[in-house]
Amino acid sequence: MRIRHLVHVVGLILLALTGALVVTALVALIYGDGDAGAFALTAGISLAVGAAAVATTDVERDLTVREGYAVVALAWLAVGAVGALPFLFTGVLSSPVPALFESISGFTTTGATVFADIEALPHGILFWRNFTQWMGGMGIIVLGLAVLPFLGVGGMQLFQAEVPGPTPSRLQPRITQTAKLLWYVYAGLTAAQAVLWMLGGASAFDAVTHAFTTLSTGGFSPEAESIAAFDSAYLQWVTILFMFLAGVNFALHYRALHGGPRVYWEDAEWRFFGKLLLGAGGLILAAVLAGGHFAGQGFETSLRHSVFQTVAIVTTTGYVTADYEQWAIGAQVVLLLLMFVGGMAGSTGGGMKVVRVQVLVKHMFTEMKKSLRPRAVILTRVGRRVLQEDVLLRIVAFLVLYLMVFAVGTMLLSFLGMDLTTAVGAAAATLGNIGPGLGDVGAVDNYGWMGPTAQGLLTFLMVVGRLELFTVLLLFHPDLWRKSGVRSAG
Amino acid sequence: MRIRHLVHVVGLILLALTGALVVTALVALIYGDGDAGAFALTAGISLAVGAAAVATTDVERDLTVREGYAVVALAWLAVGAVGALPFLFTGVLSSPVPALFESISGFTTTGATVFADIEALPHGILFWRNFTQWMGGMGIIVLGLAVLPFLGVGGMQLFQAEVPGPTPSRLQPRITQTAKLLWYVYAGLTAAQAVLWMLGGASAFDAVTHAFTTLSTGGFSPEAESIAAFDSAYLQWVTILFMFLAGVNFALHYRALHGGPRVYWEDAEWRFFGKLLLGAGGLILAAVLAGGHFAGQGFETSLRHSVFQTVAIVTTTGYVTADYEQWAIGAQVVLLLLMFVGGMAGSTGGGMKVVRVQVLVKHMFTEMKKSLRPRAVILTRVGRRVLQEDVLLRIVAFLVLYLMVFAVGTMLLSFLGMDLTTAVGAAAATLGNIGPGLGDVGAVDNYGWMGPTAQGLLTFLMVVGRLELFTVLLLFHPDLWRKSGVRSAG
Repeated sequence: MRIRHLVHVVGLILLALTGALVVTALVALIYGDGDAGAFALTAGISLAVGAAAVATTDVERDLTVREGYAVVALAWLAVGAVGALPFLFTGVLSSPVPALFESISGFTTTGATVFADIEALPHGILFWRNFTQWMGGMGIIVLGLAVLPFLGVGGMQLFQAEVPGPTPSRLQPRITQTAKLLWYVYAGLTAAQAVLWMLGGASAFDAVTHAFTTLSTGGFSPEAESIAAFDSAYLQWVTILFMFLAGVNFALHYRALHGGPRVYWEDAEWRFFGKLLLGAGGLILAAVLAGGHFAGQGFETSLRHSVFQTVAIVTTTGYVTADYEQWAIGAQVVLLLLMFVGGMAGSTGGGMKVVRVQVLVKHMFTEMKKSLRPRAVILTRVGRRVLQEDVLLRIVAFLVLYLMVFAVGTMLLSFLGMDLTTAVGAAAATLGNIGPGLGDVGAVDNYGWMGPTAQGLLTFLMVVGRLELFTVLLLFHPDLWRKSGVRSAG
Repeated sequence: MRIRHLVHVVGLILLALTGALVVTALVALIYGDGDAGAFALTAGISLAVGAAAVATTDVERDLTVREGYAVVALAWLAVGAVGALPFLFTGVLSSPVPALFESISGFTTTGATVFADIEALPHGILFWRNFTQWMGGMGIIVLGLAVLPFLGVGGMQLFQAEVPGPTPSRLQPRITQTAKLLWYVYAGLTAAQAVLWMLGGASAFDAVTHAFTTLSTGGFSPEAESIAAFDSAYLQWVTILFMFLAGVNFALHYRALHGGPRVYWEDAEWRFFGKLLLGAGGLILAAVLAGGHFAGQGFETSLRHSVFQTVAIVTTTGYVTADYEQWAIGAQVVLLLLMFVGGMAGSTGGGMKVVRVQVLVKHMFTEMKKSLRPRAVILTRVGRRVLQEDVLLRIVAFLVLYLMVFAVGTMLLSFLGMDLTTAVGAAAATLGNIGPGLGDVGAVDNYGWMGPTAQGLLTFLMVVGRLELFTVLLLFHPDLWRKSGVRSAG
């Protein structure tokens, strides 16, 4: 383990973070709530530490696997810690664990908050929370779709395989180009949503901060009531649209710029995602209508809230327009199940990812067919591609680990005294990077009431969920679908 | 589909059931609670239908796969229906759905009951409930360990592969012999427990009926309070021992008769089972001690109740000595997780089976190692054997299907109005063939309060759980562990 390598990479990341802190300090200055100094101070610390780290160390391209893991762990720790400082410096939080919780909840795009009285927070802090989510979302897309596939690996674990794959000279231009294109798509969609919100009467601050946390599927809101605070069917439908777009593989969006909407229909994961949304949304709508939760407010109201909560949970955004814990239990159970699915691979959404669920379900049907026709050769196909066994085996390991982490997390939370619904909801909502859960961490609750042990555990679950532990976004690995030999990012 | 084949096989099964009904009628006659007539009548119906079916049809050995599935479905329906008749004829139940629920809960060795006031039931009915479980347990062992491996398949689905494998002439003697030996072990252990109970002061009726439902991991009890009614540390420890033995592969017991206790230690699944029990029992004991649930009653009381509930749930027996829903939530969550594991393959226990969990966990660690050393060849071993991929792939399909059935079951129950804890507990407890769940179907509750739709759904889950759907006890398939080529039933 060569410590200087780790320190160098983390230093570079802190320098980038300094830029974001400066932007936030400027926003804070404009609104004049007195929190600009805290951001300037944090920016100074981040700059000093980052510059010192970069200046005194160097890095080579032959990081080992173990160093790769160490970099990831250290970078999360550093970014999370620096991101937590403004909460402490402004005095809105007084102890480090909740501050780290809020910061990590931002960068992982989870959206779980420790704040009960969100509207009392200064504008700089409100902007910062949502900005961390937007950076987190961008990091996920750029790393997952642009950088890592070229390193011969496919996901969030920076250096799963020992590096030198293709030589840097041939590699560098394509990484930069792909990253840039994806960044354009991400930024363009964010801008589009902000403009549409402003056309609907929202302030520039509301429009931008919510566009930040919609496209990143983060779900933080400057409003305690989340999107329910904007009692506008137009704004809520616009948000539904962009949450859905954020749950889709961003490489598909890019390809659709050239290929048109046909690109979506041709993608097997997208079709599965669509069917899942229609099915789950229909069940929830039925439960909401049967329960009479919006009686006398017209069908559109029931439809909108049902679709909103379905999309908000499955994309792991976690926005809220209605207290779904008042809904029929059946609707809540559907939402809980959706928490495990998450967005498409290559989206900013969390959870297990649609394609993994799809692959597991398809495999199950293959084995069912086999037990009826034991001598037949039956292949599992996802779209027109044949599923390779090694891919399936990695997905299985992911599933088992995900369930184990969920089970152990639930168990530990219950040992800390939470009731079953709260423990299940909190573990699922943080591991899946969703935000609100069930029980005492439900739609209208927050995570501020629990002790530092529980908050620390949930912070860990957020990071674990976001890094997808060891299996990474392996679905973008070129060896994955052997039929065509290579596979584009979609 | 040749209907006559199906009818013939089901007819044979009904003739066997007639014998059991006659025995029960005699028991009812001895106790003179006036229910002997109901059993005599049921025996007559079973005999008439069975004889008519057998006389008018024939069967060949070349049943197709589809016919095999149809036989299984039809046989469960017929046995469940006939087993339900005494409840209706005696008038202790007045409608068919709860009667079928109680009957299927017996034959599947689940142990969920619709009766609140169990002690008010006549002795014949009390004996019949427990006898159905004992028959169910025997059927599982004999089918799973003796009959099916010789048919070239390994489990509960009677005819997964099209039959003629080995020719009948060579096959028949070995099936009969193995089945006989296993029956001796099962009956011997049942007798041993009954004797030990009587030595502890229990009546012959209590001793025999509880031995029936311990060795079958069924869990029915003639006492509403279950084993808590016997306020005897001796009886409870004896029961713990025999529940544990019932959760172990019965082929291991048979081999231990010759090879001694060494046989257990050499079995990888048994070691994993032991570690799991120690770990889970330790956690529950810690939660019980920390919660002070048996304060002032001595350490042995806490230890006994913790170990009892751990073993009762993991083996899917479902006996109760204490209302575990009053325990710390942490202990309850551990019990809920244990519901998914179940007993060893080849035991009478339900759940997913220890070896499946073990294989999945081992595979997960293999993939973790691989992501650290991507170029290394890493094999997954269970004991000294190398895990073959096709086995793993079938276990995965089983896991996915199990989780899907659990999720859909929970969802449907919640749509019927159950709260989350009750819905989760009821689905897990019936699918895993355990019996008592959590919430309103907890340790001191029953399933009598719910409507026929919910009861019908849970009855279906019991059958699904017991048949292990399509994957069968595939672990006894000779091709499973390729290293040695053949594998004994252990």
